[in-house]
Amino acid sequence: MTTLAIAGCGTVGGALLDLLARHGDAIERRTGHRFEVLRILVHDVARPRSVHVPRALLTESVTEFLAAPADVVVEAIGGTSTAAALARATLASGRRLVTANKALLRAEGPALAALAAAHAADGAALDFEAAVGGGVPVVRALRESLAGHGVRRIRGVLNGTTNYILSRVEDGADAAAALRAAQRAGFAEADPTRDVAGIDAADKIAVLAWLAFGVDPTRLPVRTLGLPPDPVAAVRRARTQGAVLRLVAEAEEHEGVVRASVAPVLLDAADPLARARDEENVVVIESESAGAITLHGRGAGGSATASALLADLLRASAPVPA
Amino acid sequence: MTTLAIAGCGTVGGALLDLLARHGDAIERRTGHRFEVLRILVHDVARPRSVHVPRALLTESVTEFLAAPADVVVEAIGGTSTAAALARATLASGRRLVTANKALLRAEGPALAALAAAHAADGAALDFEAAVGGGVPVVRALRESLAGHGVRRIRGVLNGTTNYILSRVEDGADAAAALRAAQRAGFAEADPTRDVAGIDAADKIAVLAWLAFGVDPTRLPVRTLGLPPDPVAAVRRARTQGAVLRLVAEAEEHEGVVRASVAPVLLDAADPLARARDEENVVVIESESAGAITLHGRGAGGSATASALLADLLRASAPVPA
Repeated sequence: MTTLAIAGCGTVGGALLDLLARHGDAIERRTGHRFEVLRILVHDVARPRSVHVPRALLTESVTEFLAAPADVVVEAIGGTSTAAALARATLASGRRLVTANKALLRAEGPALAALAAAHAADGAALDFEAAVGGGVPVVRALRESLAGHGVRRIRGVLNGTTNYILSRVEDGADAAAALRAAQRAGFAEADPTRDVAGIDAADKIAVLAWLAFGVDPTRLPVRTLGLPPDPVAAVRRARTQGAVLRLVAEAEEHEGVVRASVAPVLLDAADPLARARDEENVVVIESESAGAITLHGRGAGGSATASALLADLLRASAPVPA
Repeated sequence: MTTLAIAGCGTVGGALLDLLARHGDAIERRTGHRFEVLRILVHDVARPRSVHVPRALLTESVTEFLAAPADVVVEAIGGTSTAAALARATLASGRRLVTANKALLRAEGPALAALAAAHAADGAALDFEAAVGGGVPVVRALRESLAGHGVRRIRGVLNGTTNYILSRVEDGADAAAALRAAQRAGFAEADPTRDVAGIDAADKIAVLAWLAFGVDPTRLPVRTLGLPPDPVAAVRRARTQGAVLRLVAEAEEHEGVVRASVAPVLLDAADPLARARDEENVVVIESESAGAITLHGRGAGGSATASALLADLLRASAPVPA
């Protein structure tokens, strides 16, 4: 039995609660792990929710939340102020932090990793598969499978909201309708600035560059451009050239120097990144020994992100059926 | 410092030795891990080799090989008789086994996993990223990221040799020339029967079904068809229908029953499996919570497979730069 405290009960936190409630038995049967939620941190305990949550688990108090004797704290509130305080307190108390928060990792990733290392003997650990790629296991691939492989370049479509908008525009929607559709589908926040301006993708490529190249993401400049001001015209122009427009995040190391960027790019239709449809994410990792590895799947939305949180929660299990 | 004993010095074992010799310093810098090879098991110590190996490390004796005080035994000899004996002895002595051997895992996977579990307290562990997908981290994805996710179906192009043959035939080669090209490129064995008849792919899909569904791979029937007898005619027929011919391995669970097969299949050109070119492997994992995740990369060849062995060797490191 692993006990959880979950910070945030929005799209992501709610989807994780739903996943555990509906599939808890199947997860236990398959992996031997059972999870019990002790506490859920929310802004407003009275707000109506789409998932059923026992009212007694909810709290608006960070102090009360942190006092819950949970083995693992799952951080799904986003932002960098409360989230950072929660993260530091969790790790300093020798507990595992599982977070979906790319902005936090870009701002404090190395400090949190150092804190986790300092308290590792007490059980502290830092995992964040859900921070990049939604349900696509790109963090695990870089942390474990491709570590030490001489990764040279990472290219990706890392923001589900902007890709969903571009897909709707390709289907004939105007930009405002496309954004509304993304919001209705639960991909875009009420304020979609971070998505549309490329900041979310910049946070994510900085985190991937940290994992792949060991650079400090807090100091890595990421040249960041968002969606073009007129996506409809840009998509039309791309089409007349036989190309596909995608918001591409890229990081590359050359002789010890890492360059990173986010920008709208015209791609050949055969490019793996051009195949990201709707909220999908695609990441291509190029390394000397393994060549180019492409990972492709659902990059945004509660269910995909919750599945990545679950992957981290199960991490220690290494469930090879005997 | 981790000490290794490597069984086999052919395409895969040789590539691992080469990778460690050329990139050992970079791997240590990036991950903190340094590897030292204590012993290498070969058929014939006198045979000329393409990689430089100190003669003193080579032995033809399994007993001498197992007596080396190595932390990890890397098994890259293939087959199921000597390999099985090595695997059992390694795990029973509380050491880690890293293997690329899908036939061994299909024949004895659960028994070896049980042995590893029984000796886990002494340090035994069983890892086999290199057994399926070459450099594509599909084993890790199923063992860790997607465990407990309700995987429903796995489809893949899992045999690099046959895919390389089909690609050469698509380029205009006849079947014999295509096979010779695969052998020259180091993908096909001198006796390519296991590849061409679909047995290698069947071993691999059985291993993936074991990981995804918990079925016993030793008892799982895999309906197995290999390449068509006349690949040139089959590729031509596919083309006239606007389709792409691929050797597709598939496993699916429905209400507790797992069905698995390997067969040549006509695919829509937009199917992710149709995009496997040359020796590439593609795997699509469909699960309830994460949707469809596609992994695509180099599936055969010494370098790609060695990179997967290295991923397993680094496994315990979880190298988040602090």
